[in-house]
Amino acid sequence: MIGRFNHVAIAVPDLNAAVKTYQDVLGAKVSAPQDEPAHGVTVVFVELPNTKVELLYPLGENSPIKGFLDKNPGGGIHHICYEVDDILVARDRLKASGARVLGSGDPKIGAHGNPVLFLHPKDFYGTLVELEQAKAPAAAE
Amino acid sequence: MIGRFNHVAIAVPDLNAAVKTYQDVLGAKVSAPQDEPAHGVTVVFVELPNTKVELLYPLGENSPIKGFLDKNPGGGIHHICYEVDDILVARDRLKASGARVLGSGDPKIGAHGNPVLFLHPKDFYGTLVELEQAKAPAAAE
Repeated sequence: MIGRFNHVAIAVPDLNAAVKTYQDVLGAKVSAPQDEPAHGVTVVFVELPNTKVELLYPLGENSPIKGFLDKNPGGGIHHICYEVDDILVARDRLKASGARVLGSGDPKIGAHGNPVLFLHPKDFYGTLVELEQAKAPAAAE
Repeated sequence: MIGRFNHVAIAVPDLNAAVKTYQDVLGAKVSAPQDEPAHGVTVVFVELPNTKVELLYPLGENSPIKGFLDKNPGGGIHHICYEVDDILVARDRLKASGARVLGSGDPKIGAHGNPVLFLHPKDFYGTLVELEQAKAPAAAE
């Protein structure tokens, strides 16, 4: 069911410093910061040959990563994201197996414009897992 | 400097259960468990099209992930690994920039038979970073 590893997301307390670290110290190619008000984050993409790292910084008062940074003031790995072909098929299969889908259970549009869901970390060994439907479904005949 | 994303490693308190989750719930291809006595872990590789996930379980009394599981009994993301072309060049560049290399600073042979180093999580936003020289260096002329 899961396909490509879409990204690992790292929450950081200082986005400019993190960009400098990834650019100057690790020598990686990083994007310009991008505000995602709908998701409560500013994101910088670190582009690697086979996948990407997302550096997340809170945007707005209700940012979903604010609590994470309160608990981990120096930052930390926030989640990993796997691609799936069909997010609804994936959701139904996960629910049938007893895994908990966070929120309403309906996919939201994620930072890349594709439908996403998050799975409960307790069902995946302390790892917050995002599933992203990487491609638009084929049009009905 | 950093190249491909080699893997993300997740420490788990029950390897058989984690294999079942990745195989049956997430529908991924997983390898047979492999004991790595030199590294104090038993590892299962989850093979994704573009990279891999490593499920780590402690092996022996001095396992380096024992303390992590004591602090995170349900498991959690332990480290991420980036590939570099030349581990000694990478190490010297990192040291010159003030980043701390763990241990003696000399590369060890990692679970894939290649030289590896670990970098201090405090210098990388709470993320334990492994660097792996993915290919043998070219023979001297």
